[in-house]
Amino acid sequence: MVNQFRYEIPTAIEFGNGVINDLAKHVKNLNGTKVLIVGDPGVVQAGVVDKLTKPLEDNGIPYVTFSEIEPDPAIQSVEKGLQLADEEGCDLVVGVGGGSSLDTAKAIGLMLTNSGHIRDYVGINMVPNQAAPVIAVPTTAGTGSELTIWSVLSDKEVKVKVSVGSIYNMPTLALCDPELTTSLPPHITAATGMDALTHALESYVNKATQPISEGLSVQAMKMISKNLRLAVVQGENKEARYQMLLASLIAAMAFNTTRLGLSHALALPLGAHFKIPHGVVNAILLPEVMQFNIIGNVKKFAEIATIFGENTIGLTTREAAEKAVTAIRQLKKDVGIAQTLSDYGVREEHLDMIAEEAMLSGNVAVNPVKPTLEDLKNICRAAMYPVAKEVVTN
Amino acid sequence: MVNQFRYEIPTAIEFGNGVINDLAKHVKNLNGTKVLIVGDPGVVQAGVVDKLTKPLEDNGIPYVTFSEIEPDPAIQSVEKGLQLADEEGCDLVVGVGGGSSLDTAKAIGLMLTNSGHIRDYVGINMVPNQAAPVIAVPTTAGTGSELTIWSVLSDKEVKVKVSVGSIYNMPTLALCDPELTTSLPPHITAATGMDALTHALESYVNKATQPISEGLSVQAMKMISKNLRLAVVQGENKEARYQMLLASLIAAMAFNTTRLGLSHALALPLGAHFKIPHGVVNAILLPEVMQFNIIGNVKKFAEIATIFGENTIGLTTREAAEKAVTAIRQLKKDVGIAQTLSDYGVREEHLDMIAEEAMLSGNVAVNPVKPTLEDLKNICRAAMYPVAKEVVTN
Repeated sequence: MVNQFRYEIPTAIEFGNGVINDLAKHVKNLNGTKVLIVGDPGVVQAGVVDKLTKPLEDNGIPYVTFSEIEPDPAIQSVEKGLQLADEEGCDLVVGVGGGSSLDTAKAIGLMLTNSGHIRDYVGINMVPNQAAPVIAVPTTAGTGSELTIWSVLSDKEVKVKVSVGSIYNMPTLALCDPELTTSLPPHITAATGMDALTHALESYVNKATQPISEGLSVQAMKMISKNLRLAVVQGENKEARYQMLLASLIAAMAFNTTRLGLSHALALPLGAHFKIPHGVVNAILLPEVMQFNIIGNVKKFAEIATIFGENTIGLTTREAAEKAVTAIRQLKKDVGIAQTLSDYGVREEHLDMIAEEAMLSGNVAVNPVKPTLEDLKNICRAAMYPVAKEVVTN
Repeated sequence: MVNQFRYEIPTAIEFGNGVINDLAKHVKNLNGTKVLIVGDPGVVQAGVVDKLTKPLEDNGIPYVTFSEIEPDPAIQSVEKGLQLADEEGCDLVVGVGGGSSLDTAKAIGLMLTNSGHIRDYVGINMVPNQAAPVIAVPTTAGTGSELTIWSVLSDKEVKVKVSVGSIYNMPTLALCDPELTTSLPPHITAATGMDALTHALESYVNKATQPISEGLSVQAMKMISKNLRLAVVQGENKEARYQMLLASLIAAMAFNTTRLGLSHALALPLGAHFKIPHGVVNAILLPEVMQFNIIGNVKKFAEIATIFGENTIGLTTREAAEKAVTAIRQLKKDVGIAQTLSDYGVREEHLDMIAEEAMLSGNVAVNPVKPTLEDLKNICRAAMYPVAKEVVTN
């Protein structure tokens, strides 16, 4: 365990069904005079943006909407959104949507008060000034971007994903309304939910965690264990949606400053080169990474087995740890994620590149087992050609 | 469970052995030019203040020390400290000590930027302006004041304890160095540790909690269950001290906005009129309050029994819930708290007054069982004349 650590969550959280109706009040409290709403075309089409513009209009607060955001948000989107905010004189950003919208909105907020280019701030703690006020309104239960220092952005010029991590990149307010998530289709609910699980789990077993994050990770895993299947198969189940959005946020409170592990290290190059949705790639990788990591943290994997309902009575701790992998394989199957890396075109000849790029991630150093390049390739191989290693109920 | 809630921890946390050595860096980061150090005579005598002034002197940061603080800090201490800060031109407050020192330091920080009198701000959310920067350095593992909105102050003129609760009353930075706690004597370690436990437990079972606080309460209780006895009987045990200071802080993160329960409601008048140390009065009351509250949250009391190591296999949930009370009675006994309310002069004729004053506390409304005045009196009676209700190992 670490000795000295810093823990800081400057973002205020407003959580609950109906909290978005108070958007205008929050904009005023933050002294916003003109709002840039940042949301991808999907949330615009689904009418979610209208739910935010209504309270603004009712209160006479001017706004402009920016929706040129792709699933893997690009540095180029940040540039365009920033230009619009500058032209229109916006001084507060509302991000609404999944991770792509929120990561873009946060980066625009940063660039409103920092000179130069967003590329100047790639890395951790590179940003000199506090961002303009940003209100993050998540519509998926997974990314946790509403409560993290991170914006992950694609640089289309060089085909790579880069991360900007700064305490100044945390939203001023996370406005979390579970009712916005009830219309998510099952496959997105599943993928984003598995992303939230990966956050909680990778943080929990890694070498940089500390008891604050551990307590939050356990709580998030308990809530996901109880509610993810229900949110997928009963999309309208308000309680399950509430619990999943909150679990995703609690996982973010846990991993925000601990980093993650090999699933996230590998997810970046796999996302950048093969366009595998972030939640899906994490779901595909997670059981294989867990299998690799067990011997780095046997006791915690045994605890994870219990959290996910495995019967560990009579087992040794080492045996119980294996059951954690069984449980997550079953969960992944139950929520309908049957894809493999092969389905997205990943082939043996790509693995050197993937492993080398993954090895550059800050998530590798905190992983409970130190990997070689060959280890990373083997994890990918296991996620390309799945074999029935465990008895999973059909 | 609540639907809508706000959760906010604006205080940054620096935790670990040796973190106080960076005090000067933090003062500079917060633009402090002259520091008011607020610490009770005990921490001055123990040489703890010297550990803070050395890094300030080494870095040429001027400071003055204010130590006219009593165990139950008074509004009058806040007035004196504020006057000194004004006269000396201090713009940053460092509070060092137990709850008394920290509550006073926070209130002085508030009054440096708010006009009028501290009495004007009694209650919750009554303060209009952000406080001056406050760095809280706890030397006991219990109060949690380094991470809460609360300052509890005695008004000596009217012999009552009042609470100021404001998000602006949270310190800017909690600088938590477990090595400062290793010299605490066993009886103070025990009492403050039982206070931290009461925070975690009362928040966990009350009606205002939500899953963020629940996860943190469980984590704090697990850590206290494992480490409080060790911290008492092996004062020099660095790991136990580390875990207890962190558990106290995590409990504060849990209860900060949920309020507490009947132990804390009764602790205020019992503290004000009979001078029972805050941790001791909570330890005396907690098992009796738990017994009264079981039927308001059977499932959670059963979980608490498990957290504290009770064997609940084969028991009904209702039976297991009773074991939580057994466990806390045993813990209280093990850490050497054998006092009763009678030992502090509480008599039958005082109970009407105590119950009536306790009923005014905001902690009553969130308690899992709604009490009558007679219920409050019965809880006090049970804590005055202890009978062997449970088999507790000698």
